Amino acid sequence: MLGKTYDSQVCSIARTLELVGERWSLLIVRDALFAGSTRFTDFQRNLGIATNILRNRLDGFVEHGIMQRHRYSEQPELFEYVLTDKGRALAPALIALTAWGDEWAAPDGPPLQYRHTVCGSELTPQTVCARCGTVHDPAEIRAVPGPGMPTDRADILLRMQREHGLT
Amino acid sequence: MLGKTYDSQVCSIARTLELVGERWSLLIVRDALFAGSTRFTDFQRNLGIATNILRNRLDGFVEHGIMQRHRYSEQPELFEYVLTDKGRALAPALIALTAWGDEWAAPDGPPLQYRHTVCGSELTPQTVCARCGTVHDPAEIRAVPGPGMPTDRADILLRMQREHGLT
Repeated sequence: MLGKTYDSQVCSIARTLELVGERWSLLIVRDALFAGSTRFTDFQRNLGIATNILRNRLDGFVEHGIMQRHRYSEQPELFEYVLTDKGRALAPALIALTAWGDEWAAPDGPPLQYRHTVCGSELTPQTVCARCGTVHDPAEIRAVPGPGMPTDRADILLRMQREHGLT
Repeated sequence: MLGKTYDSQVCSIARTLELVGERWSLLIVRDALFAGSTRFTDFQRNLGIATNILRNRLDGFVEHGIMQRHRYSEQPELFEYVLTDKGRALAPALIALTAWGDEWAAPDGPPLQYRHTVCGSELTPQTVCARCGTVHDPAEIRAVPGPGMPTDRADILLRMQREHGLT
């Protein structure tokens, strides 16, 4: 967990990264979501990361309600780590990160594709306008202050956007 | 840049994080995309990060084609950093990370909202099935090996999914 690193940022991206932005974190969630990994040894084997880092990440996920820990063996005492709804809800963000990597950093083609279990068709991440449907051009996206942004920070954002011709 | 950290991972999420997964990286891209920041002082002022870290991130973005550097002053020599298409294409991933933070880590409501510049309506990130439309339940998402995954790694993934009842 990055903890208070981004504390001055009133921003849901920053808050998300505080919880899942440390090295390996999102790959652990990926394995839990898409490979079904639950046991320490599952994650360790597939990721090949140091056990102390893996332990630290899993404990952090439990602490922040992203995973729940269940004991599946008493002698020896062993636990499995299962994503909560909060953890599973990271799927769309992972799929969006995948799409960027597929387009810009996958010379051999997409390593992984996502399918709808109900019909088997391909899934894609899209940014959808309530009125116009899918928006493809990032230039058509504007950020505006929401109810969770304090007035002083909203003013800074709006001033910066004005200065840079984004309004 | 995380560089070779995730080298054993044939995965577009890992490759994306290698390029933009270091601390502050995605917040710099956020400011470039949505506040219009281009100058070193823009980023520094809004993020409040150490200048050596900011310099390192901007240089890395230029090296990896996520930003282009343009000189805007000769005396003193000053540069601005402008997102390329590759950099701007991170917008959907940022919007998806925002949505997660809005839902799970924004007690005062969304700090930022995204609007379509064409019509002013709200934008939301969605995972869309080519046949069924928007998929809301992460349990309906399955990852399958794509053309860019070597056969031996595809076998590992499929075996793990079978072991965990995901097939």
